[in-house]
Amino acid sequence: MRIDILTVVPELIEPFFNYSILKRAREKGLVEVHIHNLRDYTTSRHRKVDDYPFGGEAGMVMQIQPIDACISALKAERDYDEVIFTSPDGETFDQPMANALSLKENIIILCGHYKGVDWRVREHLVTHEISIGDYVLTGGELPAAVIADAVVRLLPGVIGDEQSALSDSFQDNLLAPPVYSRPAEYKGWRVPDILLSGHEAKIAEWRYEQALERTKRLRPDLLEKK
Amino acid sequence: MRIDILTVVPELIEPFFNYSILKRAREKGLVEVHIHNLRDYTTSRHRKVDDYPFGGEAGMVMQIQPIDACISALKAERDYDEVIFTSPDGETFDQPMANALSLKENIIILCGHYKGVDWRVREHLVTHEISIGDYVLTGGELPAAVIADAVVRLLPGVIGDEQSALSDSFQDNLLAPPVYSRPAEYKGWRVPDILLSGHEAKIAEWRYEQALERTKRLRPDLLEKK
Repeated sequence: MRIDILTVVPELIEPFFNYSILKRAREKGLVEVHIHNLRDYTTSRHRKVDDYPFGGEAGMVMQIQPIDACISALKAERDYDEVIFTSPDGETFDQPMANALSLKENIIILCGHYKGVDWRVREHLVTHEISIGDYVLTGGELPAAVIADAVVRLLPGVIGDEQSALSDSFQDNLLAPPVYSRPAEYKGWRVPDILLSGHEAKIAEWRYEQALERTKRLRPDLLEKK
Repeated sequence: MRIDILTVVPELIEPFFNYSILKRAREKGLVEVHIHNLRDYTTSRHRKVDDYPFGGEAGMVMQIQPIDACISALKAERDYDEVIFTSPDGETFDQPMANALSLKENIIILCGHYKGVDWRVREHLVTHEISIGDYVLTGGELPAAVIADAVVRLLPGVIGDEQSALSDSFQDNLLAPPVYSRPAEYKGWRVPDILLSGHEAKIAEWRYEQALERTKRLRPDLLEKK
């Protein structure tokens, strides 16, 4: 899988891809991540990528020219499945969407910044607008990292222990059950006896009951999706 | 405002706070962000912060001892309004929650990693579990950055142009209207004439209509909150 990320602040997002599983996935050749500085694509003499909005609103707007130039250059090299734009008014990102994106070959993620991007970019160049949640952030860089992280960890071979990903919250529409590690007692707080019993079948049953109970109490909406 | 972030991979999150508005907010003295490496608080000889889960599940679990030691050390210095844990099964983060958190004085954000944290941490030390959305990530570092970004940009003085934050999506339960910048025509795609008219009142009306129309079409649920 190849992910191209277009941004006006590459410094903000580059370090993230050089650590943790994203780094390991890149080193193993399971994913290629390319971060493009939109300033490298502007025809402006001062490497400007933003300008005032028409109609006199507050804030600055990312201009269409550098974005179009960057996307065109990438598309000339290979086909892309999606040109994603991260925006609070996009389709809400969730685990099924992460699963679907993990099957794509090449995707572009355009990070908004400032007051937004010129609307014509969204109308003519973007194929999928995605929101990671109902809140406003400084830019689309964190959302792009969130999407990349959620998607890349699903690629076969990225997480060492595949079983671990399968038992995550949401994959089966159940919240994960409680986990405990040593010590068995800490400041008087004890691990449930069942987990120390060594009785595999009973432990599995306990975990399922805990997951179901927590889901019913905290997120009954997930059970309706089953 | 002071934000303390507890993590096992500080390298992943530190760069983010050294760029963009988070950096400016820190330089202006509007926010203090302290990132703590949990390995500095472990009593383990090998700086270990995780161990196998009781009951034999796949994945590793963050142990309670270093987390408790770090939180206790911080609490000995000052009072904290919240000890937040980022988890996919927490309360869903949204703009009203960002507004509420921006009024707090001192908050701790604990980033989960690996398979999760020892349940006793969540039962006894955490006061607020927050999810940034229904998807699974490698760790709580990106969610912590998302929460910090959404909250810090609301602090007075952080965004230069305060008007800009007020007209964001969600602040009035309306999606933002389209924005355009130069050139007025690009590859035959034109900016709407109204925005070039100079007629302020008509432009404001157009923007409101566009925002309302987009919200009705894409996110009718937001209008019910009004």
